[in-house]
Amino acid sequence: MRKKKEGEAVLFTNTSEVELVDLMGDDRRLVETATVSTGADSATWSDERVVGLINRLMKDRHGSAFEHVYFTFKIKTPLFTARQFMRHRMASYNEVSGRYRLLPQEYYIPPYDRPVMQIGKAMDYEFVVDEKIGAMANVAMRGACEHASKIYEQLLDAGVAREVARMIIPVNVMTEFFVTINLRSLFNLMSLRSTEQGLFPSHPQFEFSQVTALIEEIVATEMPCAYAAFVEHGRVQP
Amino acid sequence: MRKKKEGEAVLFTNTSEVELVDLMGDDRRLVETATVSTGADSATWSDERVVGLINRLMKDRHGSAFEHVYFTFKIKTPLFTARQFMRHRMASYNEVSGRYRLLPQEYYIPPYDRPVMQIGKAMDYEFVVDEKIGAMANVAMRGACEHASKIYEQLLDAGVAREVARMIIPVNVMTEFFVTINLRSLFNLMSLRSTEQGLFPSHPQFEFSQVTALIEEIVATEMPCAYAAFVEHGRVQP
Amino acid sequence: MRKKKEGEAVLFTNTSEVELVDLMGDDRRLVETATVSTGADSATWSDERVVGLINRLMKDRHGSAFEHVYFTFKIKTPLFTARQFMRHRMASYNEVSGRYRLLPQEYYIPPYDRPVMQIGKAMDYEFVVDEKIGAMANVAMRGACEHASKIYEQLLDAGVAREVARMIIPVNVMTEFFVTINLRSLFNLMSLRSTEQGLFPSHPQFEFSQVTALIEEIVATEMPCAYAAFVEHGRVQP
Amino acid sequence: MRKKKEGEAVLFTNTSEVELVDLMGDDRRLVETATVSTGADSATWSDERVVGLINRLMKDRHGSAFEHVYFTFKIKTPLFTARQFMRHRMASYNEVSGRYRLLPQEYYIPPYDRPVMQIGKAMDYEFVVDEKIGAMANVAMRGACEHASKIYEQLLDAGVAREVARMIIPVNVMTEFFVTINLRSLFNLMSLRSTEQGLFPSHPQFEFSQVTALIEEIVATEMPCAYAAFVEHGRVQP
Repeated sequence: MRKKKEGEAVLFTNTSEVELVDLMGDDRRLVETATVSTGADSATWSDERVVGLINRLMKDRHGSAFEHVYFTFKIKTPLFTARQFMRHRMASYNEVSGRYRLLPQEYYIPPYDRPVMQIGKAMDYEFVVDEKIGAMANVAMRGACEHASKIYEQLLDAGVAREVARMIIPVNVMTEFFVTINLRSLFNLMSLRSTEQGLFPSHPQFEFSQVTALIEEIVATEMPCAYAAFVEHGRVQP
Repeated sequence: MRKKKEGEAVLFTNTSEVELVDLMGDDRRLVETATVSTGADSATWSDERVVGLINRLMKDRHGSAFEHVYFTFKIKTPLFTARQFMRHRMASYNEVSGRYRLLPQEYYIPPYDRPVMQIGKAMDYEFVVDEKIGAMANVAMRGACEHASKIYEQLLDAGVAREVARMIIPVNVMTEFFVTINLRSLFNLMSLRSTEQGLFPSHPQFEFSQVTALIEEIVATEMPCAYAAFVEHGRVQP
Repeated sequence: MRKKKEGEAVLFTNTSEVELVDLMGDDRRLVETATVSTGADSATWSDERVVGLINRLMKDRHGSAFEHVYFTFKIKTPLFTARQFMRHRMASYNEVSGRYRLLPQEYYIPPYDRPVMQIGKAMDYEFVVDEKIGAMANVAMRGACEHASKIYEQLLDAGVAREVARMIIPVNVMTEFFVTINLRSLFNLMSLRSTEQGLFPSHPQFEFSQVTALIEEIVATEMPCAYAAFVEHGRVQP
Repeated sequence: MRKKKEGEAVLFTNTSEVELVDLMGDDRRLVETATVSTGADSATWSDERVVGLINRLMKDRHGSAFEHVYFTFKIKTPLFTARQFMRHRMASYNEVSGRYRLLPQEYYIPPYDRPVMQIGKAMDYEFVVDEKIGAMANVAMRGACEHASKIYEQLLDAGVAREVARMIIPVNVMTEFFVTINLRSLFNLMSLRSTEQGLFPSHPQFEFSQVTALIEEIVATEMPCAYAAFVEHGRVQP
């Protein structure tokens, strides 16, 4: 995240970013750790047999083996999405601090194809795209961020502490954090925070599902058997 | 939290509130659960002996007994403080949702005696009171909140979804949440988030230490022996 | 747990015991904590509406509200069952210690109607009752416990430390522990460790399902709406 | 773990084994994740500066960065030690199952230099070496294991289910498990379960401290800066 220099415009973005920092384990590790219970010598197993056991673990929700595979991601996303992420407590976080640094003046503004109109009532509504309202919202939100950013800088210039000045920063400011999380917890997140629907309903906010989609791409690449089993068995966390 | 009616002024507050909703256990429970390991018949113990064991548990950091005492609080605090609170993962939360309801337009503005000037460099600074800067900041922050609030209402009036409109709400908006947490985790929070100093340094933000002070008052009343032992032994989490 | 006096016979039991020590919260609390997100004034809701929301929370797996209800149980069960229990990590434990006290010489022996014969192969077997084998096993197991108990006492009499002497105690020795656990974690335990079958398969050991059945009775009494919703929606943890 | 063949002697061991299966992260990762809060470009830092920050994190107990480093170990240890290990809940486990496989007939017997005599009273005792008593205990314990092992095989031969037959197996039977745990939790374990004393008292059982010593060797090799800081700052978990 670069810092805005004086006189520069506030930056806007309409998406999140997910970077894979590190990974421990692979599909074979699931089988290695699971079979300690039975004593089976899984090191010599064929790929087919590996796939078979992973499917069995997923279907029967024998989840413990999925905890030995760990991902570290670096995620850049609006603060309101970061807040939702950190409600997932089975994970470790380190994040940009508005107390210890100047907050980069970059804000999230929804893309034009993001449905911004809400129709219906609580717990039973849907979102629709409305170009005219979307354009109006876009302008109004940019203005609000620029206004907040200006006051943030005025406060800092006057010598007000960063931890005080940041209080008027809106929740669509972009933040960055490292998260380390195991595959079992990731499946939990994927079952709750994706627009892809499985056996149980999932109502994520659009902006979180953008993050989840990026994470799923990485999981699908790195853990192909486990991911395929997850999708096949209704996107239920094992 | 009442809702702001149309035409009403935005509300401001300079403090947080903590309400004790429920409590399970007391000082005697610590002894009852701890002595299952030794088989001692602690039900007949004198108060002195109870105090003695609690002090021993605290001093030697035998922490498990402190997990059988649970508090449920309802807390009203600015969103940036709620964010810090929810980094404590050994706890359960339910919070106001900006997706499911209109956000009450009430904002936190620091009280006049809150040190707002930051002097020194990163990881080695202090805060001082400056009346003139404080007064300026107060005015500027109120203005920023009123501006954001106005745009929030304009967006809602145009039919923009609550979850989109709230994106430009600043992090000093007041929120409310239930938190259920055990006494061991509370001691951890109290060791990290209080201006009272113990064996290890504690650098809480002023606004969080306001919340911690309210919590400590309740803990001191409800768990007098455990709290006294915590203070006596250097405010270290058992 | 009383201690065996010298010359006394070893004690045998064929069941576990569960005592409710304390409880925080009730069905109404689920609604109170869940509705903080929407701002609904649920205190005035009719019982019907309460039931409706609890069902909705269970069906859609909005699990967080179930974490504000806490149970403390005191459980007496064989050590091998206690081991399985403590694999549930979202809970707090204090247990009899073989380092700090003499282990009461009471052992679990399966009841006569417990199926002891295993037929079939790994991950696809069943258990059947065989009276003759059952009776033989009963005698052999009692003898093994009495033998171990005698050597335990000989070692202690010679001055060997309790933590060393207990090493030869078999895993069917009865133990006691306090466990404090929230309702969400309890539903997880009930979904995995009961012979009652729901949407997902459950393969508990007979002795653990005895414990779960006792716990379910208590939950059904204390949290009738939540328990009914759990059963109705396929015994899936919310 | 090989299986005992019919007619073979029961195996005995006097130690535990710890194998490093996998590791994610290193000392530099601690700095990378910690500095996201301040925005410092730590990639270019000198080794000295890296060491300096790690010491600061340890001393001030800024523990979150230590959660991004993960170890997977495979541990072979007596069951009573495994039980103590699994009381550490911030970790993931997969273990040999006496329900799903025959339990290898290998038992732990204390080495000759293990102090087996307990002198003093509860919570204030010490252990001393007594060769004569030690030798007596050694013989008696071997005999107890052989006796239990024989009955275990008789039960299995009669067709009794593994999960029933294993009930009379003593707690010094050797077991194996995978554990995945982060560095912060490992420091907690090392502060509580080692004979090395720091700022707070530590009373581990001899057999657990054997395991901890093996783990510390690996941590000292793989995370030299973090480990040195841990020792220097009183063996307190950050």
